[in-house]
Amino acid sequence: MGMTMTQKILAAHAGLDSVVPGQLIEADIDLALANDITGPVAIRELAKAGMDKVFDREKVALVMDHFTPNKDIKSAEQCKECREFAKKHDLTNFFDVGNMGIEHALLPEQGIVAAGDLVIGADSHTCTYGALSAFSTGVGSTDVAAGMATGKAWFRVPSAIKFDLTGSLAPWVSGKDVILHIIGMIGVDGALYQSMEFAGDGVASLSMDDRFAICNMAIEAGAKNGIFPVDDATRAYMKDRARHEPVEFAADEDAAYERVIAIDLSAIQPTVAAPHLPENTKPVGELAGIPVQQSVIGSCTNGRIEDMRAAAEIMRGRHVADGVRTIVIPATQEVYLQCIREGLAEIFIEAGAIMSTPTCGPCLGGHMGILAAGERAIATTNRNFVGRMGHVDSEVYLASPAVAAASAVTGVICDPASL
Amino acid sequence: MGMTMTQKILAAHAGLDSVVPGQLIEADIDLALANDITGPVAIRELAKAGMDKVFDREKVALVMDHFTPNKDIKSAEQCKECREFAKKHDLTNFFDVGNMGIEHALLPEQGIVAAGDLVIGADSHTCTYGALSAFSTGVGSTDVAAGMATGKAWFRVPSAIKFDLTGSLAPWVSGKDVILHIIGMIGVDGALYQSMEFAGDGVASLSMDDRFAICNMAIEAGAKNGIFPVDDATRAYMKDRARHEPVEFAADEDAAYERVIAIDLSAIQPTVAAPHLPENTKPVGELAGIPVQQSVIGSCTNGRIEDMRAAAEIMRGRHVADGVRTIVIPATQEVYLQCIREGLAEIFIEAGAIMSTPTCGPCLGGHMGILAAGERAIATTNRNFVGRMGHVDSEVYLASPAVAAASAVTGVICDPASL
Repeated sequence: MGMTMTQKILAAHAGLDSVVPGQLIEADIDLALANDITGPVAIRELAKAGMDKVFDREKVALVMDHFTPNKDIKSAEQCKECREFAKKHDLTNFFDVGNMGIEHALLPEQGIVAAGDLVIGADSHTCTYGALSAFSTGVGSTDVAAGMATGKAWFRVPSAIKFDLTGSLAPWVSGKDVILHIIGMIGVDGALYQSMEFAGDGVASLSMDDRFAICNMAIEAGAKNGIFPVDDATRAYMKDRARHEPVEFAADEDAAYERVIAIDLSAIQPTVAAPHLPENTKPVGELAGIPVQQSVIGSCTNGRIEDMRAAAEIMRGRHVADGVRTIVIPATQEVYLQCIREGLAEIFIEAGAIMSTPTCGPCLGGHMGILAAGERAIATTNRNFVGRMGHVDSEVYLASPAVAAASAVTGVICDPASL
Repeated sequence: MGMTMTQKILAAHAGLDSVVPGQLIEADIDLALANDITGPVAIRELAKAGMDKVFDREKVALVMDHFTPNKDIKSAEQCKECREFAKKHDLTNFFDVGNMGIEHALLPEQGIVAAGDLVIGADSHTCTYGALSAFSTGVGSTDVAAGMATGKAWFRVPSAIKFDLTGSLAPWVSGKDVILHIIGMIGVDGALYQSMEFAGDGVASLSMDDRFAICNMAIEAGAKNGIFPVDDATRAYMKDRARHEPVEFAADEDAAYERVIAIDLSAIQPTVAAPHLPENTKPVGELAGIPVQQSVIGSCTNGRIEDMRAAAEIMRGRHVADGVRTIVIPATQEVYLQCIREGLAEIFIEAGAIMSTPTCGPCLGGHMGILAAGERAIATTNRNFVGRMGHVDSEVYLASPAVAAASAVTGVICDPASL
C-alpha cells in the first residue's frame, strides 16, 4: 500500500522502507524546539534525568517569544534559564530579544526548517512547518527534552485526510479563511491524530504565507500535523533561506486516506470563528456589526509580511474607530523591518494602531493586550477558548488580517469587501 | 521681598499678590492628571467621598501608559475603570492605546500643558512640565481626586535653589547628564520640598528635550518642582501646540533663594548613576567596562525625539553586542512615527535593538523588559532603586541615551566619545 507525504517522511526518519497507520516507530528528528515557557520545563527534565546534554547543538532551537521582552520577574528567570542552557551547550539556534520572532514564523524564515524535515516542538503550533512539506508536530516538554538529548522521538504513525483543493481565493480571502472554513466543516476533533494533507490543483494558487496559516491551525482540528506538497513556491521560499538541503517527499498515487474532502477555494468567504471554539465559524457577513474593543493582528498564525500588507491595505488612509485598541504585531524582526521599509509601519501608526515588537503576547493571554471582563476582541490568532486573551468573561473572534483590520476601522465585525 | 518663578505662579493661582515660603495656600489648578495605576485609586476615592464629578472636563487628564497594552487582567480592569470614567464625564484628555504616550512626554507634546500652568499629577515625575515654565508637581491619588472634583489643591509654598547655568554642553552630553550631575552634587534629598529654579546664560543653549529631562528628575533630588524660565525655545515649542494661552512668569530680581549653585555646563561629562540611588553618580569613564545584559532607551525622562536621534546616531551602522537586549521605547505615538519617518526605526532594528510601543514599561518594573536575578541594565530611566526594574538582585545604571546606546553596542558601560 502506498504512503502519504507524512508517512514517507516518518518512514525515512525511522530507517524503514514503509510504515502503516497505527505503527509505533522511533525516528530521528531534525530539530527539537522549545520556547521560554516550555524550555525551562524541558531543561529541568533533562537535569532530573541526568541527561544534561544535547544531541546536536545545531538541531536544538530555543526561542524566547511568549513573554518577551519579559513581562515580569518569573518570565525573566525563565528566559535566563534558557539563555544559560544555550550558552552552556553552545546552541546555534538560540533566539532572544533583538534577533528573534515568534518561533513558528522565525524558524522557516531563518531556513532552520526545510522540506522533508522531522521537527518536534514543545508548542502546539509546531505543525506550522507542514507548509514547507516538513513533518512537524507539537509534543510535551518532557518529550522534547528526550528529543533534545537523544535526537530521537517515538511516534504512532497517523492516518490521513486528504483535502483536494481546486480553484483560487477571491479578493480579501486568505489561508486563514481556508483553515477556519475547514475547521468549521470538520470540527475541532475532525482530524484527531490524523494528518491533514493538502493536495490538488488549487495548491499552486496559495501563497506560502497562506500555507503557513493553514498548517498552523491544523492542531485546531485535532490533527497530528498538516502538510503541503513541495512546488515551485516552496522551492522559491527555501532557495536563499534553507540552511540544509531540502528533501521532497510526494504522496504515493495509491496512498490511503481515511477521507478525501474536496475544497473549492473560490467558494470560500471571509470566515470568522465566534467564541469559544475555532469550529464556531460563520461567513463574516453573518457576524457583521458586532462591536469590538480590540483588534489584534499578528501571532504565529498571521504575523507574516502578507498579513501585514493586507492589514495595511485596509488601514491606508483610514483611522481605527474610537475605542478600538488596535495592536499590530509583526511576527519577527525581519517582518518588522520590512513593515518599516514598505511603508506599512507608517500606515499603522497614522491609522491609530500601535506596533508591538514581535511576541506571542495577547494570543495566549500572555501580555501586550489582555482583555478585561466584558471586552471583545477580533484577532488573527488561533484560539478563542474561554479566557484565552484575558478575563473569563471576555470574548475572542478569530479572523484574517483583512477582517481584523476592517473591524478595527469600523469598530464592528466587518467584511473588508464592504468598506 | 521678591518671588521666584514658582512662587509667582502659585500666588497667581491662589488669587494673592504675593506668597512667602512656608505659607499654606489653596490654588486653582489648570490640570489634574492620573494614569492607569493612580487613576483607579483616585476614581474610587471620588466615589467614596460621594463626589463623582469633575470640575472641568477639559482639565482632567487620564493617560493609560504604565501597563499598556495591558500586561494582565488586573491592569486591563484598571484601564477599563478609567475608560468608563472618562466616557461618563466626557473627558477631553483621555489617552488610550493607539493615541497615547507616556504621560509626561504626551501632555507637553499635545499642548495640554503650557507656561504658567499649575498642574498636579498622581505620578512623581509630573514635575517634568517645569521645562515649559509651568508649576507642576506629583501628589497622591487622593489629592488628585480632590483636585479632579474641585479644581483646587493645597500647597505649602516652597523655597528655592537657584541653579545659575553658564556655558554649553559638549558633544554627547545632554540634559540627562546635567540633572544626574546635579543630583550627584546635592544628593537625593538635596532640594527637599524646594523648587529647583534654573537660570542664567546657559539656559538658552539647552534644547527643550534637555530641559524636559532635567525637570523630570527634579523629584530625584527631593524637589517639589523644577522650573525653567520662558525663552524663545519655549515659545517656539509651544507655538503650534499649546491649546490655551501661555502665561510667562519671570522671577523677581530680588527673589530670595536658599542657595545659588553655579553650574558650568561645558564642564559636565557624560554621567552615570550607579545602583541603587540616583545620587551615586560618576563620570562615565569611571564606570566604563562594566558588562550589561540590557539597555533601555526610553521613559518619561528620555523617550523624546532628540533622545531617539542620539541613540540612533550611535547605533547607525553598528550592531548591539551579543547578549545585550536593547529596548528602544519612543515615548509617544508621535515620536514613534517620527522615528519611522526619519529612518531611526530602521537603524534600531538593523542594529538588533527592538522597538516597543510607547509605555512606561521596564522603568518601574512594569513589563517590557524586566530583569532576572543577577542581571544588569543601563537605562535612560529615572530611578535605580533596589529591584526597580525587576528582581531585587538586579541592577540599574542610569544614563543618557547616547551612553545607553554606546553601552548596548559594546556590551559594557561606555563613553560614546570613545567609540
